[in-house]
Amino acid sequence: MTQKQTYIESWLDETHEGVRYGLEGKVLVEEKSSFQKITIFDSKRYGKSLLLDNCWMTAELQEKHYHECLVHPALCSAEKISKVLIIGGGDGGTAKECLKYKEVEEIHLVEIDNRVIELSKKYLPNIGGQAWRDSRVQITIQDGISWVSNAKDNSYDIILIDGSDPKGPAKGLFNKRFFQNCKRILKRGGVFATQSESPEAFRKIHIDTIKTIRTVFDFADPLYGSVPMYPSGWWSWTFAALDKERYKQPILQRATEINKSCEIWNTRWQKAAFGAMPTFIEKALKNEQ
Amino acid sequence: MTQKQTYIESWLDETHEGVRYGLEGKVLVEEKSSFQKITIFDSKRYGKSLLLDNCWMTAELQEKHYHECLVHPALCSAEKISKVLIIGGGDGGTAKECLKYKEVEEIHLVEIDNRVIELSKKYLPNIGGQAWRDSRVQITIQDGISWVSNAKDNSYDIILIDGSDPKGPAKGLFNKRFFQNCKRILKRGGVFATQSESPEAFRKIHIDTIKTIRTVFDFADPLYGSVPMYPSGWWSWTFAALDKERYKQPILQRATEINKSCEIWNTRWQKAAFGAMPTFIEKALKNEQ
Repeated sequence: MTQKQTYIESWLDETHEGVRYGLEGKVLVEEKSSFQKITIFDSKRYGKSLLLDNCWMTAELQEKHYHECLVHPALCSAEKISKVLIIGGGDGGTAKECLKYKEVEEIHLVEIDNRVIELSKKYLPNIGGQAWRDSRVQITIQDGISWVSNAKDNSYDIILIDGSDPKGPAKGLFNKRFFQNCKRILKRGGVFATQSESPEAFRKIHIDTIKTIRTVFDFADPLYGSVPMYPSGWWSWTFAALDKERYKQPILQRATEINKSCEIWNTRWQKAAFGAMPTFIEKALKNEQ
Repeated sequence: MTQKQTYIESWLDETHEGVRYGLEGKVLVEEKSSFQKITIFDSKRYGKSLLLDNCWMTAELQEKHYHECLVHPALCSAEKISKVLIIGGGDGGTAKECLKYKEVEEIHLVEIDNRVIELSKKYLPNIGGQAWRDSRVQITIQDGISWVSNAKDNSYDIILIDGSDPKGPAKGLFNKRFFQNCKRILKRGGVFATQSESPEAFRKIHIDTIKTIRTVFDFADPLYGSVPMYPSGWWSWTFAALDKERYKQPILQRATEINKSCEIWNTRWQKAAFGAMPTFIEKALKNEQ
């Protein structure tokens, strides 16, 4: 019985609607920032990991499942990729993937919570990696919503929304006005991308997000993949563009170079991931369900 | 504190290598059969569910994620589908999906553990549904390994392996001799399919299973999908054939009819799911990793 109790005490779970996903390990840091509760957890299975408001965000040995899917379909397909905006992304993983492209000249990383960056740098340095040292990355601690509303028209080639679930500080990253500003500041030939939740665990948010983005952008489609530590493990990212479905057409030269360092993503996988919408989402988007 | 304790006591978890997936609810039945521990659990999120040896097998509101993916790529593509063999599948879900095809004349369901069938019929009647009443289904309580070794050459159009992880009674469903017998008893123009574990949580077993099946069958490929209640949520099924990659070519007339009743599967989704192999598995199959 003693052994069993020790065991139970060493689990940390994210709980969502009668389902929980837990990792075994120990809490290294738990603090309240001005915006949220931040936890750094050392897990046996996936190494050091980050939780915000008790939700798993990333882990050293699972971050590629998320970051590769958000970044490469966008950066492999936009006409130019010299100027990149990242909203959120305080763990640095999205910026690190962007830096793999020599054509990227400037990354504006706009994170609301300085403590997420400080703790990620200290405890999860490999997730951000080069992002914390490369002079192309300019970090601003600011609300991403005000950043996009103040930014100039046609100022970015790439906009990546790397936020958490639509509650707390990330709530405003899912509404129409925010997407309209993203469209306004995106250059023609550019690509917008956002994580768009789970088709299973966040079915309604997922559907509403795609529908809203489609009312703003002329071209927008979700891509489906797997992030085991997120609710249901089944995840999505939605890509949008102004001129055509260009996010479905990776530029071969860029893709060949990037593919070498990827664990999940490649152009075959990407094509499949865009095709993998399940029937129940397809029907819902057509208002048949 | 009292409330917290009640909460903790109402979770049932499957634990695998430092990760756990739990559902909130209550245990209805827990017993030891001659082969395994069987648990029937009433979960808030997915309705009544089945566990074998503490591993989630299926649930009323999640069974389609698994059964549609195992059954339809096979039954939509085989030349004939009059005679079907199911090894395992004691919850009845695989048989139920097969019965949607009018061309199916005979289903041999060979399950090793009678108690799985009895408890599924009693507590999860909707998962098996018509399978427990349709005269086309012939149930035999027997080890599936001995069944395939005793069956006549060229006797089935479809063989579906619907077993659990390769330990306990399901261990022999993953070895070369078993697959060789499946090939022997499969008609030319037929399709063989098996669940082939998670590319993430059971990476080595997944890779070894594909490699072994490929040494036996001339054509074999994995398909990737999502079963949230299984370890990592990222799951696979491997399909094989004797004459060509026919499991990639659904017969349109059959598919159109079946698509109406599916939640996940459709021909677009299937094509994508066959294309969704991540880079780390592709490399491992080429022995590059």
